[in-house]
Amino acid sequence: MKIIVNGNDLSSAVMKVSKAISLKTTNPVLEGIKLSVVGDSLTLSATDMEIAIEKTIISDTFMEGKTVVPGKLFAEFVKKLENEEQVELVLEDENKLKIVYGASEVFLSVLSADQFPNIEKTNRENAFSLLQKDFKDIIAKTAFSCSSDESRPILKGCLFEINESFLTCVAIDGFRLAVCNKKVKNASSSFSVVVPARALNEICRLLENDDQEITFINERNKFMIEVDGTVFITRLLEGNFVNYKQIIPSEFITTVKVSRNGFLSSLERATVVAKEAKNLVKLDIKENYINVSANSESGNVNENVIINLEGKDLSIAFNSKYLCDALKAAGDEFVNIYLNSSISPCVIKPYSGEEYLYLILPIRINS
Amino acid sequence: MKIIVNGNDLSSAVMKVSKAISLKTTNPVLEGIKLSVVGDSLTLSATDMEIAIEKTIISDTFMEGKTVVPGKLFAEFVKKLENEEQVELVLEDENKLKIVYGASEVFLSVLSADQFPNIEKTNRENAFSLLQKDFKDIIAKTAFSCSSDESRPILKGCLFEINESFLTCVAIDGFRLAVCNKKVKNASSSFSVVVPARALNEICRLLENDDQEITFINERNKFMIEVDGTVFITRLLEGNFVNYKQIIPSEFITTVKVSRNGFLSSLERATVVAKEAKNLVKLDIKENYINVSANSESGNVNENVIINLEGKDLSIAFNSKYLCDALKAAGDEFVNIYLNSSISPCVIKPYSGEEYLYLILPIRINS
Repeated sequence: MKIIVNGNDLSSAVMKVSKAISLKTTNPVLEGIKLSVVGDSLTLSATDMEIAIEKTIISDTFMEGKTVVPGKLFAEFVKKLENEEQVELVLEDENKLKIVYGASEVFLSVLSADQFPNIEKTNRENAFSLLQKDFKDIIAKTAFSCSSDESRPILKGCLFEINESFLTCVAIDGFRLAVCNKKVKNASSSFSVVVPARALNEICRLLENDDQEITFINERNKFMIEVDGTVFITRLLEGNFVNYKQIIPSEFITTVKVSRNGFLSSLERATVVAKEAKNLVKLDIKENYINVSANSESGNVNENVIINLEGKDLSIAFNSKYLCDALKAAGDEFVNIYLNSSISPCVIKPYSGEEYLYLILPIRINS
Repeated sequence: MKIIVNGNDLSSAVMKVSKAISLKTTNPVLEGIKLSVVGDSLTLSATDMEIAIEKTIISDTFMEGKTVVPGKLFAEFVKKLENEEQVELVLEDENKLKIVYGASEVFLSVLSADQFPNIEKTNRENAFSLLQKDFKDIIAKTAFSCSSDESRPILKGCLFEINESFLTCVAIDGFRLAVCNKKVKNASSSFSVVVPARALNEICRLLENDDQEITFINERNKFMIEVDGTVFITRLLEGNFVNYKQIIPSEFITTVKVSRNGFLSSLERATVVAKEAKNLVKLDIKENYINVSANSESGNVNENVIINLEGKDLSIAFNSKYLCDALKAAGDEFVNIYLNSSISPCVIKPYSGEEYLYLILPIRINS
């Protein structure tokens, strides 16, 4: 292998693939970045066996070849070559990569590429496209509700249901549920997969052009996207996702229309005091207002938030973190909150439309 | 105590004094912020017994009084009252503060102000003034060289020597020395004190108006400054500071003129590889260039940096972190490096003038 590449191209490609470098591994090759030169292109790849990222840049090739460089060290080093017009990479022997820039030579110990896992790209089987901004929004509105509990690994991912021209994304952690819908294009068929939340968050970080489309391609247990020459592949989670539809009540006794910001500010103030008391915040829903209250050794908060009520009065308590997370994600000026009783879940939906739905279980209190 | 204050004034005052709240203490009153109302003003104070910060804001006073609020909780809470035109604070009894805003009431548990340490302000005894930007610059150029070693507490501070119209600031940690000089105004006399580095960094964070002067007032073991209604008081360190002047060689055999950025970039690249080898970087100083080299299991770096040499060739090794820190702080386009032998300290000074001086001990190597 002997090539010349642009320092800035190399550095930015390394930064992108670095996200997939394995941090905790007993296999040193997974701490590396694979460089492979075929024709006039250098492909950099990294994987932690859950996600993989590949980026291809143009190279002036004198000899093809491949090797695995130590990921963290190589990333740090090439970051300091950003301003070099030409960086020469030469594989001197199987264990030594020479980097030449200006009048300087550097030698790095490298590993054989034979041990590096083969990153299989998927063929187009199931696919759909959507705008980058819609994808970012659907993830921002749901992924925070994924579980971090290792005992139910399937809940560490988001369910993607592709039906006709809609993507429904669902996250659930046992205490709350988040659902969001977005229009998609070119859906090849109806199918559903569960994508690890970590991969979704990493993909969002790669996206830079809001109004451009991205295409998701699914084959068996893999999901692949390509954005501006960067290929992102994630393993899918296997198992049965919760049948979320049957958790959502279809009828409600009480409907509250409330200003999202006003209610959120009030809950955040109550949370300051409630922190010591497991975030327990009590809501007394009356005809014209919700009384938001929290009590702990530090003090007590008591606020009234103006609302529009349809249906019966109600007292109910929540973990305020779950309410705040949902209200922050919702993003509209007004939301509707639907309730049945002090021991049934509440549902938060837009004032109009059905773009998102949050369901939160209450906390039982003796009052 | 019963007052009305502006929510934004209160919040920004609390943020400022919060910096002095004690984080690790067995005395709960030091985790608090003292509120004391005299006439038409509310003074907030916090101290961890090493530094103290006080800020006074205007209040609409119905009854004077004082109390101590839980610092972290109060800070979080009032941050969420920034948009309230009027916030009413009423001390209901010795243990309960009522906060009223809009139609809401909050009660916080508070402590008696009697236990709060008395923050004694110093009288003008020794004093000097300088521009805020000069103060920030002198601290940025020196404080990083302070020791963090508990066994020599005096080295955790910067020596301030005030002589005629100059402040000389000195920091030393046993491996390196940093000295910087700035013009001051209105120096009352020649004196010297040792100020804790932490206090200096906190003061820098309070400064917002580069071209405004700040006045430092010293009395016995205290140092005080006042900036825009915020009073900052720090305890001084007691003991004998190192006689730093006798460490600095007065004559040199070798003088190197080098581009600061070029040398720094080269050292930073070498450091990537040198990290595994205790940051050991070797410099071979020749007639027209320095050869910068580092070696470790990860690989080896070998770069030449163009220089202008006066005097003899020399090989010398350093902890590259110390060289990089000094070169980063220096900030000029070119610097001069002065050397005597491979076992004597090197000195870095501006290409012209005497504003700063860095001295770094070499590492002995067998070569």
